[in-house]
Amino acid sequence: MTRDLIYLDGNFTPRTEARVSVEDRGFLFGDGVYEVIRVVRGRLFAADFHNERLERSLKGIDIALPHPVARLTEVASQLLRDNGLLDGEATVYMQVTRGVATRSHAYPTAAVSPTVYVSAAAFKPMTEFQKTGALAITQPDLRWGRCDLKTINLLPNVMAAQQAVAKGAFESVLIRDGRITEGSRTNVFGVVGNSLRTHPCNTRILPGITRAVVEKLCAELKIDIDETPIRIDEIPSLREMFLSGTTTDVMPIVKLDGRPVGSGKPGEITLRLQKVLDDEIYARGN
Amino acid sequence: MTRDLIYLDGNFTPRTEARVSVEDRGFLFGDGVYEVIRVVRGRLFAADFHNERLERSLKGIDIALPHPVARLTEVASQLLRDNGLLDGEATVYMQVTRGVATRSHAYPTAAVSPTVYVSAAAFKPMTEFQKTGALAITQPDLRWGRCDLKTINLLPNVMAAQQAVAKGAFESVLIRDGRITEGSRTNVFGVVGNSLRTHPCNTRILPGITRAVVEKLCAELKIDIDETPIRIDEIPSLREMFLSGTTTDVMPIVKLDGRPVGSGKPGEITLRLQKVLDDEIYARGN
Repeated sequence: MTRDLIYLDGNFTPRTEARVSVEDRGFLFGDGVYEVIRVVRGRLFAADFHNERLERSLKGIDIALPHPVARLTEVASQLLRDNGLLDGEATVYMQVTRGVATRSHAYPTAAVSPTVYVSAAAFKPMTEFQKTGALAITQPDLRWGRCDLKTINLLPNVMAAQQAVAKGAFESVLIRDGRITEGSRTNVFGVVGNSLRTHPCNTRILPGITRAVVEKLCAELKIDIDETPIRIDEIPSLREMFLSGTTTDVMPIVKLDGRPVGSGKPGEITLRLQKVLDDEIYARGN
Repeated sequence: MTRDLIYLDGNFTPRTEARVSVEDRGFLFGDGVYEVIRVVRGRLFAADFHNERLERSLKGIDIALPHPVARLTEVASQLLRDNGLLDGEATVYMQVTRGVATRSHAYPTAAVSPTVYVSAAAFKPMTEFQKTGALAITQPDLRWGRCDLKTINLLPNVMAAQQAVAKGAFESVLIRDGRITEGSRTNVFGVVGNSLRTHPCNTRILPGITRAVVEKLCAELKIDIDETPIRIDEIPSLREMFLSGTTTDVMPIVKLDGRPVGSGKPGEITLRLQKVLDDEIYARGN
């Protein structure tokens, strides 16, 4: 049997025994932030990007860690070692909440230590879907005004993801003010005419790490990205569509709301980016 | 020393020992709903209203309790007894999350038992503030599109409440699309001209229990309520303003963003409603 330790507040504990106080503000208010990192043969992919974003999220909701965020990637590496996850693929999950305090909306007045939770698990990429492409549906974007912060206030994302499952789809593509923002747990790209389009990084979307890597790869390949959101009236003329995400990689969307996207098969730009992203994740150092 | 037991998943446990799994969806996604109930001498005020709303919230996010919600008020009564809270005042807190499952946005595919948490604590009403009136500030309403569900996705409320504290105010009054919706943890009423105004119950606000009691009392007193949201351009001409909430009762707001509301003292209608609400909470049965 493999070990399944997690890290919680300084201790390495079996996952099944790891518990937080019912007065943890994560449990009472969703008052915390998180990251999910892709791991290949023990190497944390784009770890610096994730650390930067975690720092930004923490700052965004005024949580101060008593140590640099890079300490969490060290903890993650130890978990990967201890849990026998240095071969093959894995994901690391990191969450920081404001800590434990008597329930009251505003931040605790007394000094409180943030709750730090890190776990690691074996991961199997969705290679079949990545070849054939996946289905998506559209859903109204009901989220709050700070989607740029990666917080654990995820109920609207949960509900949108569940709607997708209920309709046999892989993901919900969210629509706000007549425009595609992103997915419930992914960023969304589309090819309209000759332009590769995606929503700009503002308070309406999460600045995805894979999104940033895709942008970097596009720059290397001299593929321009137009950060003009895709309008719903442009959906019927989409030639290609794909999602990007830490666990989805570049995922072609071949049907949206039951109608084929473009030819109904993964598009040319999509497959090209999928391949170079794969190379980046699996072949090169980072 | 008084006992401080709480109820968690069928067990009565000391508060300091009560813990939930790090994989509880409440802790990972804020995937749950809650209620706070006012208690006077062991009697749960407006318990039926709270039970109804809890049922509505649970249904709204598709959580099925294995027993009627009224079971939670029985648990609460037992906690009040066991913790020696039958004299004086108290509050009861109830929270239900979707339960414990390996992290994945959509609902768990295997049957999962919801996590049920109930606690009780002594309570001291804010009588001084209720006499003198309190200060409020305005803040943008950044919340999601289903504010009618009482979920634990409370980070925007937390941040707005913290802004109030940072500015020495009691509450943040939230503004969306140029209109007052509600407070970070209260409903908001105002007197404009001769009309008592408040935001209608739709997806933009929580249907407050105290709000409903105030509406009932207004009907008895033949005070009309106009459910037309107060526009920001009407704020300077507000003659009175008050908050309603389970722990705030009717709370006069005498300054908003540093400027006096009306005369800068609690208004006439406000004080009248405050008194009849007090009678309702303290004197009559319910």
